[in-house]
Amino acid sequence: MQSLWLEDQNLSLRDIRRPSKPDEALLRVRLAGICGTDLELARGYYPFTGVPGHEFVGEVVGSPDQSWIGKRVVGEINAVCGDCEQCKNGRPTHCEKRTVLGITNRDGVHAEYTCLPLVNLHVVPENVSDEAAVFTEPLAAALEIQEQVHFQPTDRVLLIGAGRLGQLIAQTLALTGCDLRVLARHPHQQALLKNRRIKLISETDIQLRYWDVVVEATGSPSGFGLARQAIRPRGTLVLKSTYAGELTLNLSPFVVDEITILGSRCGPFAPALRLLERGEVDPTVLIAERFPLSRGVEAYKTAKKPGILKVLLG
Amino acid sequence: MQSLWLEDQNLSLRDIRRPSKPDEALLRVRLAGICGTDLELARGYYPFTGVPGHEFVGEVVGSPDQSWIGKRVVGEINAVCGDCEQCKNGRPTHCEKRTVLGITNRDGVHAEYTCLPLVNLHVVPENVSDEAAVFTEPLAAALEIQEQVHFQPTDRVLLIGAGRLGQLIAQTLALTGCDLRVLARHPHQQALLKNRRIKLISETDIQLRYWDVVVEATGSPSGFGLARQAIRPRGTLVLKSTYAGELTLNLSPFVVDEITILGSRCGPFAPALRLLERGEVDPTVLIAERFPLSRGVEAYKTAKKPGILKVLLG
Repeated sequence: MQSLWLEDQNLSLRDIRRPSKPDEALLRVRLAGICGTDLELARGYYPFTGVPGHEFVGEVVGSPDQSWIGKRVVGEINAVCGDCEQCKNGRPTHCEKRTVLGITNRDGVHAEYTCLPLVNLHVVPENVSDEAAVFTEPLAAALEIQEQVHFQPTDRVLLIGAGRLGQLIAQTLALTGCDLRVLARHPHQQALLKNRRIKLISETDIQLRYWDVVVEATGSPSGFGLARQAIRPRGTLVLKSTYAGELTLNLSPFVVDEITILGSRCGPFAPALRLLERGEVDPTVLIAERFPLSRGVEAYKTAKKPGILKVLLG
Repeated sequence: MQSLWLEDQNLSLRDIRRPSKPDEALLRVRLAGICGTDLELARGYYPFTGVPGHEFVGEVVGSPDQSWIGKRVVGEINAVCGDCEQCKNGRPTHCEKRTVLGITNRDGVHAEYTCLPLVNLHVVPENVSDEAAVFTEPLAAALEIQEQVHFQPTDRVLLIGAGRLGQLIAQTLALTGCDLRVLARHPHQQALLKNRRIKLISETDIQLRYWDVVVEATGSPSGFGLARQAIRPRGTLVLKSTYAGELTLNLSPFVVDEITILGSRCGPFAPALRLLERGEVDPTVLIAERFPLSRGVEAYKTAKKPGILKVLLG
């Protein structure tokens, strides 16, 4: 089958063997997305050799349980053991033995076909288009913030960063009724938010020591310093970015101001699909370009451009 | 009156004017403690000129409300405006205009007399000795952790550091029934914990990625790295130390493991006094030496020695 292949930070188009795992579903990829993590992998942020990609919507074409055949599905990206300390304590996304679709020890979805355990699959509601369903995974990651933090409708919430993930975070946080302001760098990022009547804020207007919750989603260490200045005493600073690079921190002011810093990663698929089905969010406005898989290397180059939102494959 | 005086990182005994603030209580200091923060102030961690010290038990000898005269009291250390954003939102210990007893713009208690607003005072129950009551402030700081974090009785809790504050944290956390282990460096710190049947753990025995909550109370940046290794995914890392110095951190693993980092400072006096009244904790075991105020400079020198717990003045 045709596939993208990542090896030694080099991405290429290859013809590889169609995957086959008797215990898992075989999925024909209908549409896939390129995510910031994919670009970081290609930069060597994590060591990974194989097929990249983890955002997708597909069709079940093979399954140990025949009732799945033909279903249109999305899939949770962590394939877990079910038996370790984390799995047994209700934290399967933190499974100590997990493989992660297109990220850790498991070939991903930037290919014609991919495999996932049946337990990872969610059927896509009929009225949700492929173009919307392909955003289920990042939308779930946005909702993870609300799994972890109680947003009160009266909260002042500052979101720093309005890229691929930031836009979805903005759309979901806006549903809570909170007083949300978004710092967005690029004019077209700003335009998308304005279209949804989500309020923007400029960096110079950000009140210091004022915000109940600050979500840092810039994808770079630069946002952290600003988040620190903006958060109020006893506020919660949500870190939604993973990135290479280190920060030098004096932790004492965090102790004095009793700040909570919270890391946030993968989230729940079912509520993401519910919001898509009910049309409460519209991720399709993020789509910048769509490439056939055969032009996947070019698609990655496009996705890397500053300010580009979602590039799709398929 | 006789007083210690801190100026340009130099501590001396002085004869200064007795304080007098018509709106506040005048307190005769019966007994005072030397805390890690006092030692950090003397090292120049914060700029402060004046009378240091904030742990005390005293007697009201002057008051705008005469009914307070003669009462034996302890006092909350943050004197607040009642009118700022933080005060109005129920976070008076974070008042933007606060003065802090012996720490920020307010003379402290390492003197014969001190002043505090009446609203800061708590009457000490009769059966609580001066030697116990003088620990109310650090005991409240220990309880602040439980104001912020819900400790389930089934939680695995690791406390790193068993110095002045660490001992009180250990005694209070043990009351929750949680599976508490304490990493204590010095043999006499270990002995105090053993006497209360609080379990110790050696550094090499600390299981990695295992503990639901880790409390870092070493007072130095060294504990942070160990805390990070010990905490489980989605666990909570409580920072109870303020110290000079910076840490270099890669925040991505905190995001991937969805760790919560929580700064914790001053706490509630009323529950601290309740625990003292009921004898649920016994801070007096921490007392290492007691000096008259006239030998205060020597007392500070003693308090600085490694492993020394509480040095009292008065």
